[in-house]
Amino acid sequence: MTWEILSIIGTIAFAISGTLIAIEEDFDLFGFYILGFTTAFGGGLIRNLLIGVPVQNIWMQSSLFKIAFFVITLVFFLPNIWKGHLRSSIVFFDAVGLAAFAIQGANFAMSFDAPLISVTLAAILTGSGGGMLRDIFAGRRPMIFHSEIYAIWAASAGLAIGLGLIKTSFLTYLLLTIIVLLRVASVHFDWNLPRYFYR
Amino acid sequence: MTWEILSIIGTIAFAISGTLIAIEEDFDLFGFYILGFTTAFGGGLIRNLLIGVPVQNIWMQSSLFKIAFFVITLVFFLPNIWKGHLRSSIVFFDAVGLAAFAIQGANFAMSFDAPLISVTLAAILTGSGGGMLRDIFAGRRPMIFHSEIYAIWAASAGLAIGLGLIKTSFLTYLLLTIIVLLRVASVHFDWNLPRYFYR
Amino acid sequence: MTWEILSIIGTIAFAISGTLIAIEEDFDLFGFYILGFTTAFGGGLIRNLLIGVPVQNIWMQSSLFKIAFFVITLVFFLPNIWKGHLRSSIVFFDAVGLAAFAIQGANFAMSFDAPLISVTLAAILTGSGGGMLRDIFAGRRPMIFHSEIYAIWAASAGLAIGLGLIKTSFLTYLLLTIIVLLRVASVHFDWNLPRYFYR
Repeated sequence: MTWEILSIIGTIAFAISGTLIAIEEDFDLFGFYILGFTTAFGGGLIRNLLIGVPVQNIWMQSSLFKIAFFVITLVFFLPNIWKGHLRSSIVFFDAVGLAAFAIQGANFAMSFDAPLISVTLAAILTGSGGGMLRDIFAGRRPMIFHSEIYAIWAASAGLAIGLGLIKTSFLTYLLLTIIVLLRVASVHFDWNLPRYFYR
Repeated sequence: MTWEILSIIGTIAFAISGTLIAIEEDFDLFGFYILGFTTAFGGGLIRNLLIGVPVQNIWMQSSLFKIAFFVITLVFFLPNIWKGHLRSSIVFFDAVGLAAFAIQGANFAMSFDAPLISVTLAAILTGSGGGMLRDIFAGRRPMIFHSEIYAIWAASAGLAIGLGLIKTSFLTYLLLTIIVLLRVASVHFDWNLPRYFYR
Repeated sequence: MTWEILSIIGTIAFAISGTLIAIEEDFDLFGFYILGFTTAFGGGLIRNLLIGVPVQNIWMQSSLFKIAFFVITLVFFLPNIWKGHLRSSIVFFDAVGLAAFAIQGANFAMSFDAPLISVTLAAILTGSGGGMLRDIFAGRRPMIFHSEIYAIWAASAGLAIGLGLIKTSFLTYLLLTIIVLLRVASVHFDWNLPRYFYR
């Protein structure tokens, strides 16, 4: 159940983030669908690929496809409620997708007893995969290489799960909320990691 | 039989489109092979990956490899018959690859009774995958995000097949021809989809 | 045994090459890890994907993960021993990764009796995959499309293996050394392949 809810949350959030970038890039209606679907299912595709779920399983998720289709269409036709805060909206929805898929990736790695470092890497790669595809397709530098802290929050989700701290659904959703808040705060307060010292 | 012919048509067309972009980008001989092969087999690779054919099967397609090798070599050494209409030649061969792989993706999704929306998405993703890889490798914005109508023609092929309208080989080749013509016409007449209204 | 040693050599070399590009691009500490891991395991991932090893096997390589983590951390915190010759260091480590993974790809293709052209292509794709991912993520034109000779050395490794010339571990390491030297010489002496004649 938690798995399905995380899938829905992550899919919706990444679909919106792709659609908002399509607004910024002035794509046409179909470009909206392509970038929205790529982000929403690219994340899941990379997750499936990396953790060994047969990739073709995504074709059976017709309810998730319908949700994404509906969400993208809605964003395209609804008035521009993002005007003036498009950039921060993209950060928020990307953060939700990042957190949801990072948790799924870590949970999956846990389910076949992968070592801690693998659980953490699974969280990073599955969390940031959809957004990376989205940014590469749109010709942008992936968020993961922006200056504010990004992937470390996905890694934290992976660590928390890998250390066995997240035993219940409630804790899972709490973790999701914390990761989203920390990511949004990273951009808002411009938190940075150290750079290379010896330039 | 139709499957093999579509594979050959799609492989040749995408190999040529990659080679012509290598001309535009002034790559060397090996760059021609890399971009030609990437486009020709990247499409098939993504198709295999997404529809669950074991990816390593591509290594057994040695006749397709030979065909692609021959085609790329021919384009490199033959006189420049594309001069003055290189851009439109790229559009044409990309369109043929798009249509051939879109039809294959849709047929494959049909073969395991995927729902209509999945058949359509399979057509879009498998049709545009090779070209997307090609454009990303060459550092270009993928054609699918250009202004003229692109992926919607792959989607139409998927819909026609998903609705069960394409029952014979003849209809398959007719569909291929129509998709190519519509894509070429989209560029020639600059057909556009609506953009976002509320900028 | 040779397989494991090639894995370790390729992983370390690609991890360093990714980290050095992170220095050039002024990424933060986490950017170092991301680009280092992407390059080191992206190559292996593409290799696994293309030759049919289940992709999720990479999660079990925890010793390789630790090696990569250690190497990247070391490069980040150690003084800048690359200063003034960063560009040539990147070329060198990329060459080592290219050669190691090309040999692995070719050996694997050989192990299921793939035809010669497939062995050669496997060498090219698995050798250059990690570096391609790295360059695309960092927003650069992949080295394979630079002017000096690159992929042809991976192809040569594939040909040598495909023709059955490399029967012992010693010959494997000799081949590795020769490929690295030839690649470094290509950049140093600016060896080029012919370009398109009919511009």
